[in-house]
Amino acid sequence: MSSLDFSLAPELIVSDWINTTDSLSLEKLKGQLIVIYAFQMLCPGCVSHSIPQAKKVHEYYADSPVKIIGLHSVFEHHEAMKKYALEVFNHEYKLGFPVAIDQESKDGLIPQTMQRYKLRGTPSLIIIDEQGQLRLNHFGHLDDLVVGNMIGSLLAKEEIATNDKEEVLSASRCNDEGCSI
Amino acid sequence: MSSLDFSLAPELIVSDWINTTDSLSLEKLKGQLIVIYAFQMLCPGCVSHSIPQAKKVHEYYADSPVKIIGLHSVFEHHEAMKKYALEVFNHEYKLGFPVAIDQESKDGLIPQTMQRYKLRGTPSLIIIDEQGQLRLNHFGHLDDLVVGNMIGSLLAKEEIATNDKEEVLSASRCNDEGCSI
Amino acid sequence: MSSLDFSLAPELIVSDWINTTDSLSLEKLKGQLIVIYAFQMLCPGCVSHSIPQAKKVHEYYADSPVKIIGLHSVFEHHEAMKKYALEVFNHEYKLGFPVAIDQESKDGLIPQTMQRYKLRGTPSLIIIDEQGQLRLNHFGHLDDLVVGNMIGSLLAKEEIATNDKEEVLSASRCNDEGCSI
Amino acid sequence: MSSLDFSLAPELIVSDWINTTDSLSLEKLKGQLIVIYAFQMLCPGCVSHSIPQAKKVHEYYADSPVKIIGLHSVFEHHEAMKKYALEVFNHEYKLGFPVAIDQESKDGLIPQTMQRYKLRGTPSLIIIDEQGQLRLNHFGHLDDLVVGNMIGSLLAKEEIATNDKEEVLSASRCNDEGCSI
Repeated sequence: MSSLDFSLAPELIVSDWINTTDSLSLEKLKGQLIVIYAFQMLCPGCVSHSIPQAKKVHEYYADSPVKIIGLHSVFEHHEAMKKYALEVFNHEYKLGFPVAIDQESKDGLIPQTMQRYKLRGTPSLIIIDEQGQLRLNHFGHLDDLVVGNMIGSLLAKEEIATNDKEEVLSASRCNDEGCSI
Repeated sequence: MSSLDFSLAPELIVSDWINTTDSLSLEKLKGQLIVIYAFQMLCPGCVSHSIPQAKKVHEYYADSPVKIIGLHSVFEHHEAMKKYALEVFNHEYKLGFPVAIDQESKDGLIPQTMQRYKLRGTPSLIIIDEQGQLRLNHFGHLDDLVVGNMIGSLLAKEEIATNDKEEVLSASRCNDEGCSI
Repeated sequence: MSSLDFSLAPELIVSDWINTTDSLSLEKLKGQLIVIYAFQMLCPGCVSHSIPQAKKVHEYYADSPVKIIGLHSVFEHHEAMKKYALEVFNHEYKLGFPVAIDQESKDGLIPQTMQRYKLRGTPSLIIIDEQGQLRLNHFGHLDDLVVGNMIGSLLAKEEIATNDKEEVLSASRCNDEGCSI
Repeated sequence: MSSLDFSLAPELIVSDWINTTDSLSLEKLKGQLIVIYAFQMLCPGCVSHSIPQAKKVHEYYADSPVKIIGLHSVFEHHEAMKKYALEVFNHEYKLGFPVAIDQESKDGLIPQTMQRYKLRGTPSLIIIDEQGQLRLNHFGHLDDLVVGNMIGSLLAKEEIATNDKEEVLSASRCNDEGCSI
């Protein structure tokens, strides 16, 4: 895969992490497919659609090289969405996946990762492949079918790029429950 | 891809087709990814979950080498689900994709394709890859995320197996709406 | 309550009943609040919205003088929705409440109760009070809140009209679970 | 209606109001049916079920003597749900109805109205009739059908208690859209 095909995803600029003892970074996560849900804890569309999807994706891909990250990119009402409030939200909604707090900018408005990725708002979905290339940067909610299709597609391409093909495919088999792919 | 890895999907045994002027067959569709929704028009789980998903999958993959087929596999209450009734159901629910009527067996109970695929009931989901190999044979409803992941994965593997890799990947680009994969 | 306020609901014209050993009639049911869900078994809006609501209303008002009746008013595709098919539908969807089959008209199109009530289509909701007066004749689905409000209102008016008021009200009491009305 | 039948609802103890220029009280609202949704802005069950229902009830009964009030009864994570945060929540979720902030207790745990009503948690639904009597005090979410039934029932009882019966009933009429109750 040529690094010319997609632009490299810029590093996240993070002031703090929740749900992880280590500070994460795209650099550290290279080799995994990174799925980033940018949200605000008081954004209704995020709470009703994106957070539930993020939790489902996190659970479904638990044994895959897929890393789900929440990115709390507060661009309004900053006082109401500080770290302590986010921790309560995280506790009550049982997020389960690591959440990065997007670093405030100097003017206190659009946080730094949000600026760098030119996010248009929340919710936004960012997907970064195993080579660190930006594959999706989407504003708004996407249907589960669409997200599943994208992740499945990228995982398959990566699998084939880095493994002996026959070996990968022969790992899948049918059993009484059905045939897994 | 080795033909030894998965069993070849047996041909459909069909008495009639709806929503297509041509009789279809796995043989004729080789080279496409075939997604078969086995259902009964009076099966509540099919009507509330599988049929809506089949319609969504049909619409989402309209421009892809993915072929959605309904398979009306009646194994109970045959009198109430004859071809005329199915045509009404198809009209009212605006199915849109071709529907095969599974050929009745001589004893009039389990129809022939259902027997051949050892379907455990309806709804069932069958996925057959471009080489005609059986990749999924699942009884019950699957979440949109799971189905999207499977189709995306199989499409990507096929794409890479049959195309020049760089060419395929470079076809995807970002625009103002986001980056498509 | 004056019988001049609302028109008397015309009697149902029914060729057959399902889920009841007795033939019912408005005449026989006088003294109960009658809630009639007119539907067709192959009408998508009926199946996805009205039938589930009818089952919920039937269950919630099980111990009240509220009688839920399905009215199968077939005005199109008659061949696909004959009694045998309806019985299968009733079995699969576990309707639970009595279902009247609206008597076919001589020309075979709009059935007779549907004509008499001037129903505009299916689903339709008809509510008849304890005096046999028509209180609602609505085409389309109504929200659960609206239907609950109507039934609760009519039950309360009837209760007060026919009982000693203090006695009725004092029957309601609070317990640890909350206060019932 | 005897004041002995139900206990009088104790007055709300409120530190502040949102969405109303006047401080409200049960005393001031006497003569209306008061429906109180006790919630916390970071309680998932409140956000997904009770708040949407409260908005629907508020809209449906806009022209009725029904008063919807939110009661923000914070009994945990107080720092994250202070007035400023609630105002943001109110703005983002477009609540529309007046919201009372339950007065903190001296120990800073269970707020005073919550204590007085012995609420078991959030969400809770409280209904107070036109005489100021407590008619419902329920912990957890109730189905729209149930809430509609309760409000409809109480409104009807009150209507009949305070009006000339014939006059009230004759105000309802059928038109082409259906018959309103």
